[in-house]
Amino acid sequence: MRKKKDRVAVLGPEGTFTEIAARRIFKDVEFLYCDTVDEVFDSVSSVVEFGVVAIENSLEGSVNTTMDCLVDHDLKICGEVVLDINLCLVVVPGTEKKGIDTIISHPHALAQCRKFLSENFPDSRLQRHESTAAAMEELKRLKGSAAIGPKEAVETYGLKLLFENIQDAKSQTRFIVISKEGGTGRKTSIIFALKDEPGALYKALKEFAERDINLTKIESRPSKRKLGEYLFFVDFEGSLEDEKVENALTSIKEKTAFLKILGSY
Amino acid sequence: MRKKKDRVAVLGPEGTFTEIAARRIFKDVEFLYCDTVDEVFDSVSSVVEFGVVAIENSLEGSVNTTMDCLVDHDLKICGEVVLDINLCLVVVPGTEKKGIDTIISHPHALAQCRKFLSENFPDSRLQRHESTAAAMEELKRLKGSAAIGPKEAVETYGLKLLFENIQDAKSQTRFIVISKEGGTGRKTSIIFALKDEPGALYKALKEFAERDINLTKIESRPSKRKLGEYLFFVDFEGSLEDEKVENALTSIKEKTAFLKILGSY
Repeated sequence: MRKKKDRVAVLGPEGTFTEIAARRIFKDVEFLYCDTVDEVFDSVSSVVEFGVVAIENSLEGSVNTTMDCLVDHDLKICGEVVLDINLCLVVVPGTEKKGIDTIISHPHALAQCRKFLSENFPDSRLQRHESTAAAMEELKRLKGSAAIGPKEAVETYGLKLLFENIQDAKSQTRFIVISKEGGTGRKTSIIFALKDEPGALYKALKEFAERDINLTKIESRPSKRKLGEYLFFVDFEGSLEDEKVENALTSIKEKTAFLKILGSY
Repeated sequence: MRKKKDRVAVLGPEGTFTEIAARRIFKDVEFLYCDTVDEVFDSVSSVVEFGVVAIENSLEGSVNTTMDCLVDHDLKICGEVVLDINLCLVVVPGTEKKGIDTIISHPHALAQCRKFLSENFPDSRLQRHESTAAAMEELKRLKGSAAIGPKEAVETYGLKLLFENIQDAKSQTRFIVISKEGGTGRKTSIIFALKDEPGALYKALKEFAERDINLTKIESRPSKRKLGEYLFFVDFEGSLEDEKVENALTSIKEKTAFLKILGSY
Protein backbone atom coordinates (compact mmCIF):
# COMPACT_ATOMS: atom_id res chain seq x y z
CA MET A 1 0.00 0.00 0.00
CA ARG A 2 1.31 3.44 -0.93
CA LYS A 3 2.05 5.76 2.01
CA LYS A 4 -0.08 8.90 2.09
CA LYS A 5 1.82 12.11 1.30
CA ASP A 6 2.74 14.25 4.31
CA ARG A 7 0.87 17.50 4.47
CA VAL A 8 2.52 20.76 5.50
CA ALA A 9 0.54 23.81 6.67
CA VAL A 10 2.01 27.19 5.66
CA LEU A 11 0.84 30.79 5.53
CA GLY A 12 -0.89 31.29 2.19
CA PRO A 13 -1.66 32.11 -0.52
CA GLU A 14 0.77 30.33 -2.88
CA GLY A 15 4.25 31.84 -3.05
CA THR A 16 4.75 33.25 0.47
CA PHE A 17 8.25 33.33 1.93
CA THR A 18 6.97 30.67 4.34
CA GLU A 19 6.18 28.33 1.44
CA ILE A 20 9.61 29.06 -0.08
CA ALA A 21 11.20 28.15 3.28
CA ALA A 22 9.08 25.01 3.57
CA ARG A 23 10.17 23.85 0.10
CA ARG A 24 13.80 23.97 1.25
CA ILE A 25 12.98 21.26 3.79
CA PHE A 26 10.11 19.27 2.34
CA LYS A 27 10.11 17.65 -1.09
CA ASP A 28 7.08 15.92 -2.54
CA VAL A 29 4.53 16.99 0.08
CA GLU A 30 1.10 18.54 -0.15
CA PHE A 31 0.76 22.15 1.08
CA LEU A 32 -2.18 23.43 3.08
CA TYR A 33 -2.44 27.22 2.71
CA CYS A 34 -3.65 28.95 5.89
CA ASP A 35 -4.85 32.53 6.36
CA THR A 36 -3.01 33.18 9.61
CA VAL A 37 -0.18 31.84 11.76
CA ASP A 38 -2.78 30.79 14.35
CA GLU A 39 -4.47 28.66 11.70
CA VAL A 40 -1.14 26.95 10.88
CA PHE A 41 -0.79 25.96 14.55
CA ASP A 42 -4.42 24.80 14.70
CA SER A 43 -3.99 22.69 11.55
CA VAL A 44 -0.90 20.97 12.94
CA SER A 45 -2.77 20.31 16.20
CA SER A 46 -5.55 18.58 14.28
CA VAL A 47 -5.28 17.58 10.61
CA VAL A 48 -1.76 17.85 9.13
CA GLU A 49 1.63 16.40 10.08
CA PHE A 50 3.81 19.53 9.89
CA GLY A 51 3.65 23.31 9.81
CA VAL A 52 6.20 25.97 8.90
CA VAL A 53 6.05 29.47 10.45
CA ALA A 54 8.38 32.48 10.58
CA ILE A 55 9.80 33.09 14.06
CA GLU A 56 12.21 36.02 13.66
CA ASN A 57 13.60 38.44 11.12
CA SER A 58 17.01 40.05 11.48
CA LEU A 59 15.62 43.56 10.89
CA GLU A 60 12.11 43.41 12.29
CA GLY A 61 12.70 41.14 15.25
CA SER A 62 10.43 38.40 16.52
CA VAL A 63 7.12 37.39 15.05
CA ASN A 64 4.88 37.95 18.07
CA THR A 65 2.04 35.70 16.94
CA THR A 66 4.42 32.76 16.53
CA MET A 67 5.90 33.29 20.00
CA ASP A 68 2.40 33.47 21.52
CA CYS A 69 1.30 30.32 19.67
CA LEU A 70 4.36 28.40 20.92
CA VAL A 71 3.28 29.23 24.47
CA ASP A 72 -0.40 28.35 23.95
CA HIS A 73 -0.24 25.22 21.76
CA ASP A 74 0.99 21.79 22.74
CA LEU A 75 3.33 21.42 19.74
CA LYS A 76 7.06 20.81 19.28
CA ILE A 77 9.74 22.39 17.13
CA CYS A 78 11.35 19.76 14.89
CA GLY A 79 13.35 21.79 12.38
CA GLU A 80 14.44 25.23 11.23
CA VAL A 81 15.60 27.04 8.10
CA VAL A 82 17.05 30.53 7.58
CA LEU A 83 16.12 32.34 4.36
CA ASP A 84 17.77 35.41 2.80
CA ILE A 85 14.92 37.78 2.03
CA ASN A 86 14.93 39.24 -1.48
CA LEU A 87 12.10 41.78 -1.70
CA CYS A 88 10.97 42.77 -5.18
CA LEU A 89 8.73 45.51 -6.50
CA VAL A 90 6.32 43.94 -8.97
CA VAL A 91 3.48 45.17 -11.17
CA VAL A 92 0.89 43.88 -13.57
CA PRO A 93 2.58 43.77 -17.00
CA GLY A 94 2.05 47.12 -18.73
CA THR A 95 2.22 49.26 -15.57
CA GLU A 96 5.09 51.81 -15.66
CA LYS A 97 7.06 53.14 -12.69
CA LYS A 98 5.52 56.61 -13.04
CA GLY A 99 1.99 55.18 -13.04
CA ILE A 100 2.29 53.67 -9.53
CA ASP A 101 0.27 55.58 -6.93
CA THR A 102 -0.23 52.78 -4.37
CA ILE A 103 2.19 50.15 -3.06
CA ILE A 104 0.80 47.20 -1.13
CA SER A 105 2.54 44.60 1.00
CA HIS A 106 2.87 43.07 4.44
CA PRO A 107 3.70 45.79 7.03
CA HIS A 108 7.14 44.20 7.72
CA ALA A 109 8.03 44.27 4.02
CA LEU A 110 6.94 47.91 3.71
CA ALA A 111 9.01 48.76 6.79
CA GLN A 112 12.07 46.97 5.41
CA CYS A 113 11.98 49.01 2.17
CA ARG A 114 11.43 52.41 3.83
CA LYS A 115 14.51 54.02 2.27
CA PHE A 116 13.91 52.65 -1.24
CA LEU A 117 10.27 53.76 -1.11
CA SER A 118 10.93 57.29 0.13
CA GLU A 119 13.62 57.79 -2.53
CA ASN A 120 11.75 56.24 -5.46
CA PHE A 121 8.07 56.62 -4.57
CA PRO A 122 7.87 59.60 -2.17
CA ASP A 123 4.26 60.34 -3.12
CA SER A 124 2.84 56.82 -3.33
CA ARG A 125 0.38 55.60 -0.75
CA LEU A 126 1.48 52.54 1.24
CA GLN A 127 -1.20 49.99 2.00
CA ARG A 128 -0.86 47.10 4.43
CA HIS A 129 -1.82 43.59 3.41
CA GLU A 130 -2.00 40.20 5.15
CA SER A 131 1.07 38.77 3.44
CA THR A 132 3.45 39.67 0.60
CA ALA A 133 2.01 36.90 -1.57
CA ALA A 134 -1.58 37.98 -0.87
CA ALA A 135 -0.60 41.50 -1.97
CA MET A 136 0.81 40.09 -5.21
CA GLU A 137 -2.34 38.03 -5.78
CA GLU A 138 -4.51 41.12 -5.16
CA LEU A 139 -2.53 43.21 -7.65
CA LYS A 140 -4.44 42.18 -10.78
CA ARG A 141 -7.65 43.61 -9.31
CA LEU A 142 -6.05 47.04 -8.69
CA LYS A 143 -5.06 49.79 -11.10
CA GLY A 144 -1.91 51.91 -10.70
CA SER A 145 -0.55 49.70 -7.93
CA ALA A 146 2.62 47.78 -7.23
CA ALA A 147 3.28 45.07 -4.65
CA ILE A 148 6.40 44.11 -2.69
CA GLY A 149 7.06 40.41 -2.37
CA PRO A 150 9.23 37.39 -3.15
CA LYS A 151 10.75 36.86 -6.60
CA GLU A 152 9.55 33.26 -6.57
CA ALA A 153 5.91 34.38 -6.72
CA VAL A 154 6.28 36.68 -9.75
CA GLU A 155 5.57 33.86 -12.19
CA THR A 156 2.83 32.28 -10.05
CA TYR A 157 0.74 35.45 -10.34
CA GLY A 158 1.75 36.43 -13.90
CA LEU A 159 3.43 39.66 -12.78
CA LYS A 160 6.42 41.70 -13.95
CA LEU A 161 9.47 42.40 -11.83
CA LEU A 162 10.49 46.10 -11.77
CA PHE A 163 13.15 46.16 -9.02
CA GLU A 164 14.71 43.45 -6.86
CA ASN A 165 16.58 43.42 -3.53
CA ILE A 166 14.95 46.72 -2.58
CA GLN A 167 15.18 46.13 1.20
CA ASP A 168 17.20 48.79 3.07
CA ALA A 169 19.61 46.26 4.53
CA LYS A 170 20.42 42.57 4.18
CA SER A 171 17.62 40.71 5.85
CA GLN A 172 17.19 37.10 6.94
CA THR A 173 14.19 35.29 8.35
CA ARG A 174 14.32 32.19 10.49
CA PHE A 175 11.47 29.71 10.06
CA ILE A 176 10.67 26.76 12.30
CA VAL A 177 8.98 23.46 11.55
CA ILE A 178 6.30 22.47 14.07
CA SER A 179 4.69 19.08 14.67
CA LYS A 180 3.00 17.06 17.37
CA GLU A 181 6.10 14.87 17.79
CA GLY A 182 9.48 16.30 18.75
CA GLY A 183 12.57 15.70 16.62
CA THR A 184 16.23 15.07 17.30
CA GLY A 185 19.20 17.32 16.65
CA ARG A 186 21.98 19.44 18.11
CA LYS A 187 19.88 22.45 19.11
CA THR A 188 17.07 22.70 21.68
CA SER A 189 14.42 25.34 22.40
CA ILE A 190 12.65 25.96 25.70
CA ILE A 191 10.36 28.58 27.26
CA PHE A 192 10.42 29.40 30.96
CA ALA A 193 9.00 31.91 33.45
CA LEU A 194 10.95 32.94 36.53
CA LYS A 195 9.90 32.71 40.14
CA ASP A 196 9.51 36.17 41.64
CA GLU A 197 12.76 36.28 43.61
CA PRO A 198 16.05 38.21 43.36
CA GLY A 199 18.61 36.75 40.98
CA ALA A 200 16.10 34.31 39.48
CA LEU A 201 17.34 34.65 35.90
CA TYR A 202 20.96 34.48 37.01
CA LYS A 203 20.26 31.23 38.86
CA ALA A 204 18.55 29.71 35.83
CA LEU A 205 21.37 30.70 33.47
CA LYS A 206 23.94 29.35 35.91
CA GLU A 207 22.66 25.82 35.16
CA PHE A 208 23.68 26.30 31.53
CA ALA A 209 26.94 28.19 32.17
CA GLU A 210 28.28 25.66 34.68
CA ARG A 211 27.72 22.83 32.19
CA ASP A 212 29.24 24.78 29.26
CA ILE A 213 25.94 24.76 27.41
CA ASN A 214 26.05 27.67 24.98
CA LEU A 215 22.90 29.76 24.50
CA THR A 216 22.31 30.80 20.88
CA LYS A 217 19.23 32.88 21.66
CA ILE A 218 17.66 34.43 24.71
CA GLU A 219 14.67 36.61 24.29
CA SER A 220 12.17 37.76 26.86
CA ARG A 221 8.61 38.82 26.34
CA PRO A 222 6.09 40.26 28.79
CA SER A 223 3.88 37.51 30.21
CA LYS A 224 0.82 39.64 29.34
CA ARG A 225 -0.45 39.07 32.85
CA LYS A 226 1.22 41.93 34.70
CA LEU A 227 4.03 44.44 34.19
CA GLY A 228 7.40 43.04 35.20
CA GLU A 229 6.58 39.37 34.52
CA TYR A 230 8.47 37.86 31.60
CA LEU A 231 8.60 34.65 29.59
CA PHE A 232 12.08 33.68 28.38
CA PHE A 233 12.56 31.96 25.02
CA VAL A 234 15.92 30.22 25.04
CA ASP A 235 17.71 28.21 22.33
CA PHE A 236 20.87 26.36 23.23
CA GLU A 237 23.44 24.03 21.69
CA GLY A 238 22.79 20.46 22.81
CA SER A 239 20.21 17.73 22.47
CA LEU A 240 17.55 16.57 24.90
CA GLU A 241 19.30 13.21 24.66
CA ASP A 242 22.52 14.61 26.21
CA GLU A 243 22.94 13.85 29.89
CA LYS A 244 24.19 17.34 30.72
CA VAL A 245 21.18 18.91 29.01
CA GLU A 246 18.86 16.58 30.91
CA ASN A 247 20.52 17.55 34.20
CA ALA A 248 20.41 21.27 33.41
CA LEU A 249 16.70 21.11 32.58
CA THR A 250 15.90 19.13 35.73
CA SER A 251 17.59 21.84 37.83
CA ILE A 252 15.97 24.65 35.87
CA LYS A 253 12.53 23.11 36.35
CA GLU A 254 13.00 23.43 40.11
CA LYS A 255 14.11 27.05 39.83
CA THR A 256 11.42 28.35 37.50
CA ALA A 257 7.67 28.90 37.78
CA PHE A 258 6.99 27.40 34.36
CA LEU A 259 9.09 25.35 31.91
CA LYS A 260 8.06 24.17 28.47
CA ILE A 261 10.43 22.06 26.38
CA LEU A 262 9.84 22.71 22.68
CA GLY A 263 12.19 19.99 21.43
CA SER A 264 15.52 19.34 19.74
CA TYR A 265 16.12 19.77 16.02
CA MET B 1 11.93 87.86 36.37
CA ARG B 2 9.41 85.03 36.05
CA LYS B 3 10.86 81.66 35.11
CA LYS B 4 9.73 80.38 31.72
CA LYS B 5 7.30 77.44 31.91
CA ASP B 6 8.81 74.01 31.26
CA ARG B 7 7.60 72.44 28.06
CA VAL B 8 6.74 68.74 27.79
CA ALA B 9 6.51 66.90 24.47
CA VAL B 10 3.84 64.17 24.29
CA LEU B 11 2.14 62.12 21.60
CA GLY B 12 -0.80 64.18 20.36
CA PRO B 13 -3.45 65.22 19.71
CA GLU B 14 -4.93 66.46 23.01
CA GLY B 15 -6.22 63.76 25.33
CA THR B 16 -3.90 60.81 24.59
CA PHE B 17 -3.04 58.38 27.37
CA THR B 18 0.48 59.83 27.16
CA GLU B 19 -0.82 63.29 28.02
CA ILE B 20 -2.90 61.82 30.87
CA ALA B 21 0.27 60.14 32.19
CA ALA B 22 2.29 63.36 31.78
CA ARG B 23 -0.31 65.32 33.80
CA ARG B 24 0.23 62.93 36.72
CA ILE B 25 3.84 64.14 36.92
CA PHE B 26 3.86 67.69 35.57
CA LYS B 27 1.64 70.48 36.85
CA ASP B 28 1.54 73.92 35.24
CA VAL B 29 3.59 73.10 32.14
CA GLU B 30 3.04 73.72 28.46
CA PHE B 31 2.42 70.64 26.27
CA LEU B 32 3.87 70.19 22.81
CA TYR B 33 1.75 67.67 20.87
CA CYS B 34 3.83 65.50 18.51
CA ASP B 35 2.65 63.21 15.71
CA THR B 36 4.96 60.30 16.53
CA VAL B 37 7.15 58.92 19.30
CA ASP B 38 10.20 59.74 17.14
CA GLU B 39 9.11 63.36 17.08
CA VAL B 40 8.85 63.41 20.90
CA PHE B 41 12.48 62.24 21.12
CA ASP B 42 13.58 64.80 18.49
CA SER B 43 11.80 67.63 20.35
CA VAL B 44 13.49 66.74 23.63
CA SER B 45 16.86 66.61 21.84
CA SER B 46 16.32 70.13 20.51
CA VAL B 47 13.57 72.46 21.77
CA VAL B 48 11.77 71.25 24.92
CA GLU B 49 12.91 70.25 28.42
CA PHE B 50 11.00 66.97 28.86
CA GLY B 51 9.13 64.29 26.93
CA VAL B 52 6.77 61.51 28.02
CA VAL B 53 6.47 58.28 26.03
CA ALA B 54 4.86 54.87 26.61
CA ILE B 55 7.44 52.10 27.02
CA GLU B 56 5.40 48.97 27.80
CA ASN B 57 1.89 47.70 28.25
CA SER B 58 1.04 44.69 30.40
CA LEU B 59 -1.00 43.05 27.63
CA GLU B 60 0.68 44.19 24.43
CA GLY B 61 4.29 44.20 25.58
CA SER B 62 6.96 46.71 24.71
CA VAL B 63 6.53 49.75 22.52
CA ASN B 64 9.13 48.99 19.86
CA THR B 65 9.55 52.56 18.62
CA THR B 66 10.35 53.78 22.14
CA MET B 67 12.94 51.03 22.65
CA ASP B 68 14.56 51.87 19.30
CA CYS B 69 14.61 55.61 20.10
CA LEU B 70 16.27 54.96 23.48
CA VAL B 71 19.08 53.19 21.62
CA ASP B 72 19.44 55.85 18.92
CA HIS B 73 19.05 59.13 20.87
CA ASP B 74 21.40 60.61 23.41
CA LEU B 75 18.72 61.15 26.07
CA LYS B 76 18.20 60.03 29.67
CA ILE B 77 15.26 58.59 31.58
CA CYS B 78 14.42 60.80 34.58
CA GLY B 79 11.01 59.53 35.72
CA GLU B 80 8.23 57.00 35.20
CA VAL B 81 4.53 56.56 35.82
CA VAL B 82 2.22 53.54 35.50
CA LEU B 83 -1.33 54.15 34.32
CA ASP B 84 -4.37 51.82 34.54
CA ILE B 85 -5.83 51.81 31.06
CA ASN B 86 -9.59 52.35 30.88
CA LEU B 87 -10.67 51.94 27.27
CA CYS B 88 -14.06 53.40 26.33
CA LEU B 89 -16.25 53.07 23.28
CA VAL B 90 -17.39 56.55 22.30
CA VAL B 91 -19.56 58.03 19.57
CA VAL B 92 -20.74 61.38 18.27
CA PRO B 93 -23.89 62.25 20.31
CA GLY B 94 -26.92 60.84 18.51
CA THR B 95 -25.21 57.69 17.18
CA GLU B 96 -26.82 54.47 18.47
CA LYS B 97 -25.11 51.15 19.15
CA LYS B 98 -26.90 49.48 16.21
CA GLY B 99 -25.79 52.25 13.82
CA ILE B 100 -22.07 51.57 14.27
CA ASP B 101 -20.49 49.91 11.23
CA THR B 102 -16.86 51.00 11.73
CA ILE B 103 -14.73 51.15 14.88
CA ILE B 104 -11.49 53.12 14.79
CA SER B 105 -8.58 53.22 17.23
CA HIS B 106 -4.88 52.56 17.74
CA PRO B 107 -4.02 48.92 16.80
CA HIS B 108 -3.06 48.12 20.43
CA ALA B 109 -6.42 49.38 21.70
CA LEU B 110 -8.32 47.35 19.08
CA ALA B 111 -6.27 44.29 20.05
CA GLN B 112 -6.97 44.80 23.75
CA CYS B 113 -10.74 44.84 23.17
CA ARG B 114 -10.85 41.81 20.84
CA LYS B 115 -13.35 39.86 22.98
CA PHE B 116 -15.67 42.82 23.61
CA LEU B 117 -15.68 43.69 19.91
CA SER B 118 -16.36 40.17 18.65
CA GLU B 119 -19.24 39.76 21.13
CA ASN B 120 -20.83 43.18 20.67
CA PHE B 121 -19.81 44.24 17.16
CA PRO B 122 -19.13 41.01 15.23
CA ASP B 123 -19.92 42.66 11.88
CA SER B 124 -18.24 46.05 12.34
CA ARG B 125 -15.14 46.93 10.39
CA LEU B 126 -12.05 47.72 12.50
CA GLN B 127 -9.87 50.55 11.28
CA ARG B 128 -6.40 51.39 12.57
CA HIS B 129 -5.51 54.93 13.56
CA GLU B 130 -2.33 56.72 14.75
CA SER B 131 -3.52 57.08 18.35
CA THR B 132 -6.67 56.61 20.41
CA ALA B 133 -7.08 60.38 20.77
CA ALA B 134 -6.58 60.97 17.04
CA ALA B 135 -9.33 58.41 16.41
CA MET B 136 -11.65 60.29 18.77
CA GLU B 137 -10.80 63.61 17.10
CA GLU B 138 -11.48 62.08 13.66
CA LEU B 139 -14.88 60.75 14.75
CA LYS B 140 -16.91 63.90 14.07
CA ARG B 141 -15.94 63.69 10.38
CA LEU B 142 -17.22 60.10 10.06
CA LYS B 143 -20.74 58.72 9.96
CA GLY B 144 -21.77 55.47 11.63
CA SER B 145 -18.46 55.13 13.44
CA ALA B 146 -17.27 54.67 17.01
CA ALA B 147 -13.81 55.15 18.49
CA ILE B 148 -12.00 53.43 21.35
CA GLY B 149 -10.01 55.71 23.65
CA PRO B 150 -9.52 57.27 27.07
CA LYS B 151 -12.45 58.55 29.14
CA GLU B 152 -10.55 61.78 29.79
CA ALA B 153 -10.81 62.78 26.13
CA VAL B 154 -14.59 62.31 25.81
CA GLU B 155 -15.29 65.89 26.88
CA THR B 156 -12.35 67.38 24.93
CA TYR B 157 -13.88 66.17 21.67
CA GLY B 158 -17.56 66.62 22.60
CA LEU B 159 -18.32 62.90 22.37
CA LYS B 160 -20.65 60.51 24.15
CA LEU B 161 -19.49 57.51 26.17
CA LEU B 162 -21.32 54.26 25.31
CA PHE B 163 -19.24 51.64 27.18
CA GLU B 164 -16.26 51.88 29.50
CA ASN B 165 -13.56 49.45 30.65
CA ILE B 166 -14.12 47.34 27.54
CA GLN B 167 -10.56 45.90 27.46
CA ASP B 168 -10.46 42.07 27.68
CA ALA B 169 -8.25 42.10 30.77
CA LYS B 170 -6.89 44.61 33.26
CA SER B 171 -4.22 46.55 31.44
CA GLN B 172 -1.50 48.92 32.62
CA THR B 173 0.93 51.03 30.65
CA ARG B 174 4.28 52.26 31.91
CA PHE B 175 5.39 55.67 30.67
CA ILE B 176 8.86 57.18 31.04
CA VAL B 177 9.98 60.79 31.24
CA ILE B 178 12.95 61.63 29.01
CA SER B 179 15.28 64.64 29.12
CA LYS B 180 18.81 65.66 28.21
CA GLU B 181 19.87 65.58 31.87
CA GLY B 182 19.62 62.43 33.99
CA GLY B 183 17.74 62.40 37.29
CA THR B 184 18.22 60.77 40.65
CA GLY B 185 16.23 57.97 42.26
CA ARG B 186 16.15 54.39 43.46
CA LYS B 187 15.81 52.73 40.07
CA THR B 188 18.26 52.68 37.12
CA SER B 189 17.91 51.67 33.46
CA ILE B 190 20.67 50.50 31.14
CA ILE B 191 21.02 48.93 27.67
CA PHE B 192 23.83 46.57 26.76
CA ALA B 193 24.94 44.23 23.99
CA LEU B 194 26.89 41.07 24.72
CA LYS B 195 30.26 40.05 23.38
CA ASP B 196 29.95 36.98 21.19
CA GLU B 197 31.24 34.39 23.66
CA PRO B 198 29.74 31.50 25.65
CA GLY B 199 28.08 32.45 28.92
CA ALA B 200 28.23 36.18 28.12
CA LEU B 201 24.82 37.01 29.58
CA TYR B 202 25.45 34.86 32.62
CA LYS B 203 28.71 36.74 33.28
CA ALA B 204 27.00 40.12 32.97
CA LEU B 205 24.15 39.14 35.30
CA LYS B 206 26.64 37.74 37.81
CA GLU B 207 27.83 41.31 38.48
CA PHE B 208 24.33 42.18 39.68
CA ALA B 209 23.61 38.92 41.52
CA GLU B 210 26.86 38.96 43.51
CA ARG B 211 26.11 42.48 44.72
CA ASP B 212 22.46 41.68 45.57
CA ILE B 213 21.23 44.17 43.00
CA ASN B 214 17.70 43.12 42.08
CA LEU B 215 16.64 43.32 38.43
CA THR B 216 13.07 44.54 37.96
CA LYS B 217 13.07 44.13 34.19
CA ILE B 218 15.16 42.31 31.65
CA GLU B 219 14.07 42.34 28.07
CA SER B 220 16.03 41.49 24.98
CA ARG B 221 15.47 42.67 21.46
CA PRO B 222 17.17 41.66 18.22
CA SER B 223 19.98 44.08 17.37
CA LYS B 224 18.53 44.41 13.84
CA ARG B 225 22.01 43.78 12.47
CA LYS B 226 22.06 40.00 12.31
CA LEU B 227 20.09 37.02 13.63
CA GLY B 228 21.26 35.96 17.08
CA GLU B 229 22.53 39.38 18.20
CA TYR B 230 20.51 40.97 20.99
CA LEU B 231 20.30 44.21 22.93
CA PHE B 232 19.34 43.82 26.59
CA PHE B 233 17.19 46.44 28.32
CA VAL B 234 17.67 46.10 32.06
CA ASP B 235 16.09 48.00 34.97
CA PHE B 236 17.41 47.41 38.47
CA GLU B 237 16.89 48.61 42.02
CA GLY B 238 19.66 51.02 42.96
CA SER B 239 20.97 54.45 42.07
CA LEU B 240 23.95 55.44 39.94
CA GLU B 241 25.19 57.19 43.08
CA ASP B 242 25.48 53.88 45.00
CA GLU B 243 28.99 52.50 45.17
CA LYS B 244 27.88 48.92 44.49
CA VAL B 245 25.99 50.02 41.39
CA GLU B 246 29.02 51.96 40.17
CA ASN B 247 31.23 48.89 40.68
CA ALA B 248 28.75 46.59 38.94
CA LEU B 249 28.53 48.87 35.91
CA THR B 250 32.31 49.24 35.67
CA SER B 251 32.65 45.44 35.55
CA ILE B 252 29.76 45.07 33.11
CA LYS B 253 31.30 47.64 30.79
CA GLU B 254 34.38 45.40 30.48
CA LYS B 255 32.26 42.33 29.76
CA THR B 256 29.90 43.78 27.17
CA ALA B 257 30.32 45.04 23.61
CA PHE B 258 28.14 48.10 24.25
CA LEU B 259 26.75 49.75 27.39
CA LYS B 260 24.45 52.73 27.58
CA ILE B 261 23.39 54.13 30.95
CA LEU B 262 19.93 55.68 30.69
CA GLY B 263 19.90 57.15 34.20
CA SER B 264 18.35 56.83 37.66
CA TYR B 265 14.86 57.99 38.52
